[in-house]
Amino acid sequence: MTESIRFYFDFISPYAYLAWTQIHRIAALHGREVVAVPTLFAALLNAGGQKGPAEIPNKRAYLFKDVVRLAHRFGVPLVPPPAHPFNPLLALRAASLPESNRALLDRLYAAAWGGGGGVTDPRVVERAADDAGLDGASIVRAASSEEAKARVRAQTQEALDAGCFGVPSMVVGGELFWGCDSLPHLELFLDGKDPVDPAAVARWHSLPASASRRAH
Amino acid sequence: MTESIRFYFDFISPYAYLAWTQIHRIAALHGREVVAVPTLFAALLNAGGQKGPAEIPNKRAYLFKDVVRLAHRFGVPLVPPPAHPFNPLLALRAASLPESNRALLDRLYAAAWGGGGGVTDPRVVERAADDAGLDGASIVRAASSEEAKARVRAQTQEALDAGCFGVPSMVVGGELFWGCDSLPHLELFLDGKDPVDPAAVARWHSLPASASRRAH
Repeated sequence: MTESIRFYFDFISPYAYLAWTQIHRIAALHGREVVAVPTLFAALLNAGGQKGPAEIPNKRAYLFKDVVRLAHRFGVPLVPPPAHPFNPLLALRAASLPESNRALLDRLYAAAWGGGGGVTDPRVVERAADDAGLDGASIVRAASSEEAKARVRAQTQEALDAGCFGVPSMVVGGELFWGCDSLPHLELFLDGKDPVDPAAVARWHSLPASASRRAH
Repeated sequence: MTESIRFYFDFISPYAYLAWTQIHRIAALHGREVVAVPTLFAALLNAGGQKGPAEIPNKRAYLFKDVVRLAHRFGVPLVPPPAHPFNPLLALRAASLPESNRALLDRLYAAAWGGGGGVTDPRVVERAADDAGLDGASIVRAASSEEAKARVRAQTQEALDAGCFGVPSMVVGGELFWGCDSLPHLELFLDGKDPVDPAAVARWHSLPASASRRAH
């Protein structure tokens, strides 16, 4: 049985949305399944002591344009949510439920980045679940349970353990691919044509540092 | 007269090296000149309060592979320097001198990322300048002057004023493009086909935040 592609994402990231619009085609081309793993991006940033891209003023201004350009390249809609950053936890917990499915994620993503009014309002999550053929009211109720909260925490820990430092991250065969820009690299890997030489990477890992910045 | 592409870079960044291997072809295709602007990456990070990519353990491990994959895609050599991070200031100051030229930058980049033994040793910089048809000894002397130091500081400030938060950054017509992944976007822009709608970007800028992380 061929190993699935684990897709670590958070609704807060437009890049994760853009990758979501591409990953199913790539996976299907290579006979793989996609397993979506809702992950709290803020916790990945905290773990690395990183700032988020939207927390660096020059970068925030740039990224707006970058995601518009990527959406254009991919030929998919991109409409910002009513507020950003927003709290993605309800949507992440709903997406994590055992009864969640790709249709629910598609609809939550459409709400977040496809002009659907955002995913922070429980009524939006409920409608997305109804539209996905689930029982919306029971999805929203289950998403608020301690079990659902613990599941997202566990998945975020799984992401960290897999080496994730951002979203989207795609993990397959022990290899991690980060960001929309890595999708061509993922495809090469799935084709058995990854140019990375493990011995060369090991040499890089052991490179000494001859300079460092002062700690901040 | 068509506006030049200002190429902000630091020898410390393998991505800036990889972009350097591509930017001249792109510029020539669109009838543009490239103006290389040596910039201290660490100062850009400091200004944004960011960690550098190599300062986040999971990210450092990943980026080694990512640059190998990009180099393979571009069909160019990539050999890590003897130490990384390293102090790029001597090379940046040499590259900033009025008598500097593309051949010098090509040779310094080959020393940094093409298997040439790094660019921190003044003898390497001297030889690179000699090979570029310059007077190596006088280049190294001039690169150590207060004037050369002030020039790199001023260029770094210019980069910040232009909105740079990382390297490589390419600025033309008031637009900034960051990273190797933005090269296709730069090409569309130079073709007059940039899909960015300024009015839509302005709306994004005015989006409220409805959540934020705790300060760290």
